[in-house]
Amino acid sequence: MIHTLPDEYRDLLERPLIGILATVSPDGRPSLQPMRFTWDGAHIRMSQTIPRRKFVPLQANPNYSFIITDSDNPARVLEITGWLVTVGGDPEGDFYRELGRRYGNPDEPVPADVDDRVVLILDAQHFIPKTAPTAPSATHAS
Amino acid sequence: MIHTLPDEYRDLLERPLIGILATVSPDGRPSLQPMRFTWDGAHIRMSQTIPRRKFVPLQANPNYSFIITDSDNPARVLEITGWLVTVGGDPEGDFYRELGRRYGNPDEPVPADVDDRVVLILDAQHFIPKTAPTAPSATHAS
Repeated sequence: MIHTLPDEYRDLLERPLIGILATVSPDGRPSLQPMRFTWDGAHIRMSQTIPRRKFVPLQANPNYSFIITDSDNPARVLEITGWLVTVGGDPEGDFYRELGRRYGNPDEPVPADVDDRVVLILDAQHFIPKTAPTAPSATHAS
Repeated sequence: MIHTLPDEYRDLLERPLIGILATVSPDGRPSLQPMRFTWDGAHIRMSQTIPRRKFVPLQANPNYSFIITDSDNPARVLEITGWLVTVGGDPEGDFYRELGRRYGNPDEPVPADVDDRVVLILDAQHFIPKTAPTAPSATHAS
């Protein structure tokens, strides 16, 4: 477990990949959600709607884990752990549009629930490179 | 959240895909690990080494979440939640070899740590179909 992002895994945070966010509900159950994200070198940002179930767990227990698999080489995986720093508003949908541009949908319309949209700002504390087992369908199975 | 596996998601459990297992450590932090698995219609089985960190959390907090993404269509995702039922031994490495065959490596050698290998038997309580956001590199982005 390391506190600095290894250079050879930096691309997994910089590329528009889909990660899996793990949170823990107040009753101690883990929950998973595929998420788009941005990375500024220190924080991961994600868009969320306040009524969504994912948001409540992070308020009660701010610890998260986020795992990103290299879509070009599924054996390359990076887990990032840390905690929720703060929740920002996104009343104009600016962050939502930023995600759309990053993920190749520059014309993605702002969703109808934009008034409930928030930006989760997650501190990245640990970077844990992993080697995933590979499946027969893996593009570059090792 | 449903208690029966929907027919249209059954393939995600039957195909040799790599899933992401979420467990919760005793201090309440979620942790993630890519895992191979088998499915018999009621239970998910995975191979684990006793000293591995993943195992301890599931003993203290048996709740897990497991998420499987369709490698052919990353928008198709199934989350399964439940709890650890029991831990079986695998002293001869039979289950480990079964995983090897399922994942296209029938000649995969039994690992050196076979004496420490166990089989996690996980009850599948809830099946939660999800639609994941898609990335530019997704094969079948919707």
